[in-house]
Amino acid sequence: MSAIDRRHLLKTSAGALLAGIATHDAQAQAAAPAPKEAPPEPVTRLVARYAATAPIEQIPPAVRKEATRTLLNWVGCAVGGARQEAPSRAVAALAPFSGPPQAGLFGRGERFDALNAALINGISSHVLDYDDTHLKTIIHPAGPVAAALTAFAEGRNIAGADFMNALTLGCEIECRIGNSVFPEHYAMGWHITGTTGMFGAAAAVGRLLKLDEERMTHAIGIAASQPTGLKVQFGSDTKSFHPGKAAQNGMLAALLAAQGFTASKVAIEGFDGWGKAASTRHNWDEVLRGLGTRYEIGLNTYKPFACGIVAHPAIDAAIQLREANQLKPEQIRSVALKVHPLVLNLMGKTEPGIGLEGKFSVYHAVAVALVTGRGGDQAFSDKAVQDPVVIALRKKVEAVVDTAIKADQVDMTITLADGRQLHQFIEHAVGSQLHPMSDKQLEDKFAGQAEDILPAAQSRRLMEICWNAWSLRDAGEILRAGALVKA
Amino acid sequence: MSAIDRRHLLKTSAGALLAGIATHDAQAQAAAPAPKEAPPEPVTRLVARYAATAPIEQIPPAVRKEATRTLLNWVGCAVGGARQEAPSRAVAALAPFSGPPQAGLFGRGERFDALNAALINGISSHVLDYDDTHLKTIIHPAGPVAAALTAFAEGRNIAGADFMNALTLGCEIECRIGNSVFPEHYAMGWHITGTTGMFGAAAAVGRLLKLDEERMTHAIGIAASQPTGLKVQFGSDTKSFHPGKAAQNGMLAALLAAQGFTASKVAIEGFDGWGKAASTRHNWDEVLRGLGTRYEIGLNTYKPFACGIVAHPAIDAAIQLREANQLKPEQIRSVALKVHPLVLNLMGKTEPGIGLEGKFSVYHAVAVALVTGRGGDQAFSDKAVQDPVVIALRKKVEAVVDTAIKADQVDMTITLADGRQLHQFIEHAVGSQLHPMSDKQLEDKFAGQAEDILPAAQSRRLMEICWNAWSLRDAGEILRAGALVKA
Repeated sequence: MSAIDRRHLLKTSAGALLAGIATHDAQAQAAAPAPKEAPPEPVTRLVARYAATAPIEQIPPAVRKEATRTLLNWVGCAVGGARQEAPSRAVAALAPFSGPPQAGLFGRGERFDALNAALINGISSHVLDYDDTHLKTIIHPAGPVAAALTAFAEGRNIAGADFMNALTLGCEIECRIGNSVFPEHYAMGWHITGTTGMFGAAAAVGRLLKLDEERMTHAIGIAASQPTGLKVQFGSDTKSFHPGKAAQNGMLAALLAAQGFTASKVAIEGFDGWGKAASTRHNWDEVLRGLGTRYEIGLNTYKPFACGIVAHPAIDAAIQLREANQLKPEQIRSVALKVHPLVLNLMGKTEPGIGLEGKFSVYHAVAVALVTGRGGDQAFSDKAVQDPVVIALRKKVEAVVDTAIKADQVDMTITLADGRQLHQFIEHAVGSQLHPMSDKQLEDKFAGQAEDILPAAQSRRLMEICWNAWSLRDAGEILRAGALVKA
Repeated sequence: MSAIDRRHLLKTSAGALLAGIATHDAQAQAAAPAPKEAPPEPVTRLVARYAATAPIEQIPPAVRKEATRTLLNWVGCAVGGARQEAPSRAVAALAPFSGPPQAGLFGRGERFDALNAALINGISSHVLDYDDTHLKTIIHPAGPVAAALTAFAEGRNIAGADFMNALTLGCEIECRIGNSVFPEHYAMGWHITGTTGMFGAAAAVGRLLKLDEERMTHAIGIAASQPTGLKVQFGSDTKSFHPGKAAQNGMLAALLAAQGFTASKVAIEGFDGWGKAASTRHNWDEVLRGLGTRYEIGLNTYKPFACGIVAHPAIDAAIQLREANQLKPEQIRSVALKVHPLVLNLMGKTEPGIGLEGKFSVYHAVAVALVTGRGGDQAFSDKAVQDPVVIALRKKVEAVVDTAIKADQVDMTITLADGRQLHQFIEHAVGSQLHPMSDKQLEDKFAGQAEDILPAAQSRRLMEICWNAWSLRDAGEILRAGALVKA
């Protein structure tokens, strides 16, 4: 037992005795030293070694491409959410405390120090719940890592390849740590994006700071003490706060470690470490096996539509039939859907009154897709939900549950005013892992998110910069190009 | 089920289905809505109501006095730790990111924005493990709350009574929430000071911001998502980081809530809230019963000596015998101790070589107390441990375990060179709850901590300001008077 362990033990047990409190079993347990077992694998150190040394060249082209798509999708989300209430409130709260104007905000004109910019951009990127998803853990991988990296990179002249390598390994680390504790950790109540994201952000920023293995171990360790996020917050501004704070906490951990600030070297796997505290199960093998050869970021997915994922097959079908047949709303007599049971369970609202309610109505989602060809944010605005043309068509949509239909499927039949019938069966909805969004679809999503926020030319240029991220001379360009230039 | 709950449900279950992953039991559990039970007491709201409205006049004089002693002791600790490596590293890391120089640092010359000053002062105050202790939970109550309040109050012209009321209710809230989950929460691995402290800091700063009950509820809720601290970090800089980060996180929560940023209104007690995620047991009655009439801060204790608490009775005895008999080291032939079993278990090091090792040697602790009359930080420096006079006396100290001796007791017999014997039995060591440190002893501790850091006149003035805290015209004076004025 080290001197330090002793000090702890001494405080916990003797303190209670001195207080005249009976030492009961659980308290004794709290004070007991770690049981003697075979030493576990040094998870924290091996993760740190990977973060500090993984060569860029090691990353296969397909993974690089997925990392690029991850960046593009995330930047679009950060721009798209920039004017929402949550980031606006954070801007108002933090402006009086911000340091030098080191970094901009996507889709906004203010400038903040890099730590605060990471927090605010992270909020913007998640506020519409439209960012990327690692389906195995429901982590939104980009948020914590990309928010930290883009803010940190501004003004530091960091090569795009280094930036993208850091993004890749950061996402990899948070998703793998997530895999090791999912679903128990999530079931306990933790919002896993913010409670693993700080590891990814610390590793990624630490890599840009060129931390050696020793200091990277401390950075990961400092991050372990700072999980942010509870599922109880879903439905409030604090949900989107989680990836932002994870970004800020991870960056802080890396900055502290760069100055020699120390943490436990077994902060993840050690007795009384993150794993023990935050989950009833941990399979560290999920973290370490194939690290650097098999990539979780390669499994990342993107939401094509700004509503619950169970309605995505129906929206996909509606847009396909509309485009193939040049459909106009007035041609349509009725729309018949066979759907998975969850669709009516979760999205069965027949008379939505406002935008948010529209997100829980498959009837609205199909109608607006048939009228506009779109399923992005604008399709779920108050205006869209209250549009008389959409409402009229919504009333013509009927949906029945068919247990033969899987969650990523739908069967749609449209009957036209002239009696013709159009049929579409969706085998795997767009955006699902078996039918990923195409690059073109990601671009359309991006353009839709940016269209009310950035001038069109800036939006196109920003997209271009994201596609070319691996070869940028200066990755600071990403955030510079995404911030609003004040007139 | 609200629309928001649905959105969550939809993402978790359908997302997994779309990924082609079998939904296993635990995952289904993660996605399941809250079981229908009798609605729990609205803990978060009632805590917020208390924080927003508790009248200053309600606090009994004895509690006010203990709050004052808590402040004095904490400020001394923040000054005493100011030049340690941990805060110095944090200063170096954060200086490039800090905002306007709103607040100073105790015992140092730099100025930071209030959020960063709170973090750094919180680190300084805990780095020597010499701050106050709520023995029922082993929470160090002042750290998160006072670090946030002192930094926030500078330059805001806040009356001392308002400041001290906020300090009192902040400590009250963190200790009560701690009581409700202790010891299970602590046994899981959480370092409870940093994982309850953000509640206290949010409530205290929220009170100074005059948040109404609604916004205070959100402030407490935002705080709930940001616990900081794992016991695995004990022995590293990150241990002292915990109260500092809890101070910063709590202040951030209050600042966000003041701008309308929202959180769950049942963030503590709700399904998938802080209580469920962070502890296997919660007794909310511990939070609510007697809130505003019975005060946990009245139970606060202070460490008189800078080493493990089990050796405190022996140091107490040594100092008493030295003072009563004007003892000189050369008079002493031998020192015989009867001690509680934990003393040799935890502090049995016979040949300490450096200061930190001296903290785990009852032999050194007794010898240095007999030579110098002190048990503060200076008594456990490398210099003190290596002092030939102390070493010579240390070798004359013998200790035997006596199971009749309680943890806060000791039986000491000193045999002098002339054959006389001096005897001292300590019934309750100084600093224990049954024998609290006197105001004079707190002053001596404070002076000892400040003596290598602040000019003597400034140290005395700072103490004076702390004693008068309730009647200060401007509580910003506390930190202003504690910062080093650069020559």
